[in-house]
Amino acid sequence: MVETNRQVLLKRRPNGMPVPEDFSIVDSAVPEPGDGQVLLRGIYLSLDPYMRGRISGQPSYARPTALGEVIEGRVVGQVARSRDPAFREGDYAAGGFGWQTHSVVSGGSLQKLDPAAAPISTALGILGMPGLTAYVGLKTIGQPKSGETVVISAASGAVGAVAGQLAKRDGCRVVGIAGGGDKCRYVAEELGFEACLDHRGAHLAGELAAACPRGIDVYFENVGGAVQAAVFPHLNDHGRMIMCGMISEYNDVEPRPGPNLMAAVRKRLRIQGFIVSDHAALRPEFLALAAPLVKSGQLKYREDVVDGIDNAPGAFIGLLQGRNFGKLLVRLGTDPTH
Amino acid sequence: MVETNRQVLLKRRPNGMPVPEDFSIVDSAVPEPGDGQVLLRGIYLSLDPYMRGRISGQPSYARPTALGEVIEGRVVGQVARSRDPAFREGDYAAGGFGWQTHSVVSGGSLQKLDPAAAPISTALGILGMPGLTAYVGLKTIGQPKSGETVVISAASGAVGAVAGQLAKRDGCRVVGIAGGGDKCRYVAEELGFEACLDHRGAHLAGELAAACPRGIDVYFENVGGAVQAAVFPHLNDHGRMIMCGMISEYNDVEPRPGPNLMAAVRKRLRIQGFIVSDHAALRPEFLALAAPLVKSGQLKYREDVVDGIDNAPGAFIGLLQGRNFGKLLVRLGTDPTH
Repeated sequence: MVETNRQVLLKRRPNGMPVPEDFSIVDSAVPEPGDGQVLLRGIYLSLDPYMRGRISGQPSYARPTALGEVIEGRVVGQVARSRDPAFREGDYAAGGFGWQTHSVVSGGSLQKLDPAAAPISTALGILGMPGLTAYVGLKTIGQPKSGETVVISAASGAVGAVAGQLAKRDGCRVVGIAGGGDKCRYVAEELGFEACLDHRGAHLAGELAAACPRGIDVYFENVGGAVQAAVFPHLNDHGRMIMCGMISEYNDVEPRPGPNLMAAVRKRLRIQGFIVSDHAALRPEFLALAAPLVKSGQLKYREDVVDGIDNAPGAFIGLLQGRNFGKLLVRLGTDPTH
Repeated sequence: MVETNRQVLLKRRPNGMPVPEDFSIVDSAVPEPGDGQVLLRGIYLSLDPYMRGRISGQPSYARPTALGEVIEGRVVGQVARSRDPAFREGDYAAGGFGWQTHSVVSGGSLQKLDPAAAPISTALGILGMPGLTAYVGLKTIGQPKSGETVVISAASGAVGAVAGQLAKRDGCRVVGIAGGGDKCRYVAEELGFEACLDHRGAHLAGELAAACPRGIDVYFENVGGAVQAAVFPHLNDHGRMIMCGMISEYNDVEPRPGPNLMAAVRKRLRIQGFIVSDHAALRPEFLALAAPLVKSGQLKYREDVVDGIDNAPGAFIGLLQGRNFGKLLVRLGTDPTH
């Protein structure tokens, strides 16, 4: 059987919520590694909300994906052929080589993975960019203190679930917000948050007041929109709002009116955004903390695995609609460790 | 002639823009100082935008003025009678004793003024709370670096004029925003800002782009509303927005919709409010810097003096409408130093 490299290209920039016709799926020959390169056979592709920005063509902190290009994404895979002495056939590695089943990359751009240390998929989730995102947001902006109330939106998501657990370890009262009863039960019962409120209910503002009797000191913002509007008035003086993302607005064709920041004055709020890639230097200390906790089960995570790259566009649209449950991954091939 | 104490009381909470009928003016007997107290004859009453919050009855960082109470305000005056050994008749002092011509206060609550060091009125303006406000905002939040672009709204105002001059001294390119040609000329020609844009013109967004070819690194926000909306998109990555005040929205009956903080994520903005009274410890270093510069004329200021306390309500309404030009003061009596 001749292997082919199956790729998802950006065919058209989405107008609002992406539709399948915005993507094209093509087959091409599997490339040959050159000197210092390896051929990676993908096992997991990570799908993350930030990708909506990449395909929008709006100026941002990262270069947008061009039309006709493979869409950006991080992948965990296995080395199929190596011309880099640092990698042997069968090694596992993570790298950013996009929505495709195979890729030839320089060995130096890869992060080698030890499947005995943690499941290789976690390099895309709780021990990867989303986990580090949660850590950086808490460490550099939120700085929650024991006894403070921390609210986390998208609390069952790849970032929110880590953020809430870390804040709990710091002695905080952690309240999640998520979409639907199943996610809320998971967050409250499995992750052990104090409570988890369903933003699809009609009474989020009132439920927030009840769940946060001493107000909100830190808000880890992943959602924006109506959830942000419900949380904002409950922020305490000197509250911190970790501006990580606002997924509910990513498909807006026109940005919403604003900003209205009067509360930032009155309450001496610090509202600070960040991009995790600015803080790569914090990765070692994050991993030193989190990896043993994942291994021992003290740090929990959940993955939502979709089979086959052909399902990536639909899964991504589902992500933007909140249909995933846990860290969304696309299975690109067999995971021999699993 | 029997002296009377003329007072302005809060008669009614304003609904939107205050109207004269929201205030009542009454005469009462001049009180007698008790032990450790002094009778101060007011010379200058400071009117400041924060007062709109005090008379609104909204919960905030400070207790609102009650109906029938003298409206809060800071005054410079002269000691008429003293029963505090630290003060002698004829001494000048500043204190927070409200919209009234006379007041009995404990000597310990007063700040003694040396008229040889600086005009006593400056204790309410450039060397007082507004000057310190400018300093604190730049020092603790804006932290402008040489070569950066700093935009100041209400640039001819009591805070903005100091903020811009201090930022210029730090080697920044400082662009002001003010209302009307006279204020803009003053800011550009007298204060030496790089440019000053008239927000009453139709093209603020375009003029900002032209005046700030390298974008905006620090925005000192005093205004809110349409000015904030025009500035916000021009903030550079890692921009700082000093949330000092939003006077254009102080008379809103309903808060405007928002917040929309997507840019805070994308640009890693830090948006941080502050209240100057939290930072009183910075006053000595501020005065050590600013007082000699005021004396030598290197730090300029402008005052708008209205005669007579009866004109205080009208002057305050004018302040909220931007009709004042420079630090607004009400002359309550003769200034023997002037």
